[in-house]
Amino acid sequence: MSLPANLRVVLVAPRNPLNIGAAARAMSNFGCFDLRLVNPYHVAFHEAKSAVKSQGILAGAKEFATVGEAVGDCGLVVGTTSIGHRALEHPLRRLETGGKIIARNMASSPVALLFGSEKFGLSNEDMSHCHWLMRIPTREEHGSMNLGQSVAVCLYEIIRNPEAARAKPETKRLASAEEIERVTALLEEVLEHSGYVHSRVEGSTKMKIRRLVRRMDMNAHDAEVWLGMLRQIKWKLSGSGS
Amino acid sequence: MSLPANLRVVLVAPRNPLNIGAAARAMSNFGCFDLRLVNPYHVAFHEAKSAVKSQGILAGAKEFATVGEAVGDCGLVVGTTSIGHRALEHPLRRLETGGKIIARNMASSPVALLFGSEKFGLSNEDMSHCHWLMRIPTREEHGSMNLGQSVAVCLYEIIRNPEAARAKPETKRLASAEEIERVTALLEEVLEHSGYVHSRVEGSTKMKIRRLVRRMDMNAHDAEVWLGMLRQIKWKLSGSGS
Repeated sequence: MSLPANLRVVLVAPRNPLNIGAAARAMSNFGCFDLRLVNPYHVAFHEAKSAVKSQGILAGAKEFATVGEAVGDCGLVVGTTSIGHRALEHPLRRLETGGKIIARNMASSPVALLFGSEKFGLSNEDMSHCHWLMRIPTREEHGSMNLGQSVAVCLYEIIRNPEAARAKPETKRLASAEEIERVTALLEEVLEHSGYVHSRVEGSTKMKIRRLVRRMDMNAHDAEVWLGMLRQIKWKLSGSGS
Repeated sequence: MSLPANLRVVLVAPRNPLNIGAAARAMSNFGCFDLRLVNPYHVAFHEAKSAVKSQGILAGAKEFATVGEAVGDCGLVVGTTSIGHRALEHPLRRLETGGKIIARNMASSPVALLFGSEKFGLSNEDMSHCHWLMRIPTREEHGSMNLGQSVAVCLYEIIRNPEAARAKPETKRLASAEEIERVTALLEEVLEHSGYVHSRVEGSTKMKIRRLVRRMDMNAHDAEVWLGMLRQIKWKLSGSGS
């Protein structure tokens, strides 16, 4: 992963050391390492630096006096907001759409992603440094997210790889039709022995059982296990014990 | 938004009140209101209840002694994990793929999403109640996310695309965890009677059987059929004929 290296996470005036630490942890989870703080509450910053695990990211975090300086090297600057309807002076994109544009831009130049303070969000002055704003699609009635959580959600959306996601992770081979048919036949036998169906299984019942077994979506290994179980039951039913 | 109402967030053995509160806040942000705690550390639960803003969700949170009870009414049970490569006994899906399946299922029946404790994640016993597992695509080197953050990321992914969620509702109601557990228990009995497993079924074998049954992805009707077949087999095995 080289792309996330082009992302700068910029926390503007954060006040809570736990949130700073949580942001750094989420960055580490998703492979982003460039953390920048604008005018942080100093006690919080130092507490976070000394307390939290993601040492590397926090230790390397840079401090700036203004947003302008913090985003100086970035080709695209995006602000995050929880505000949906209020008239904003900026274009507003949903995270999904915005995330794609950010990912595309990261290929060629550094991108800054701004998060406002826990209490007030980004100010108009902060936003004026942004090309556009991005909103996580939270509920109208409770839009405002915890800072660390919104960093995590944004980074997830930006780095998730649609190609990889589309690939099916099933590693196990599905059972072949032949294997499934063996399970079906053995199950039919067991059901006959037990009296669940009567000697000559009717066609419609057979089809029901066949469909039932197919709906199980067995992989090859499961088919083996079922065959083993059914063989044992059949052996027992057919009078071994009586 | 009515769909998220069908999602149950289940925290298994959470220890940190801040994390419980953070999970509740993320739920509120994304319109999910059914929080369940399995065997929480009590001091933490009560501290969270009294301290945090999302009063409604925390006040209404239900407590359970076991995972089985907590997911009893759910048609689909999904566990979250940060483990990527380690051999897991369950099908593992990336969050993107899994989120779509969850959204689709929520259209017809309740879905449980399980999160393990901060320190240990979900145990094998917890996972044996799951149909499959889901992983947030974090870095290999630092896969483990903060609990509140992973709840936020999962909920975001599940609710982010309401259109996709509404499409293709499952026509038949999935069997509930309770119904599946009945099939499991009866199958265990039959396997004992037949001698496939020995009198006191070992824990690991029980878990294998539980997983096997969950991989069948039964709908409610199929569960009924299986119960009928197994009851008959059990009756026959237990000496009716001998």
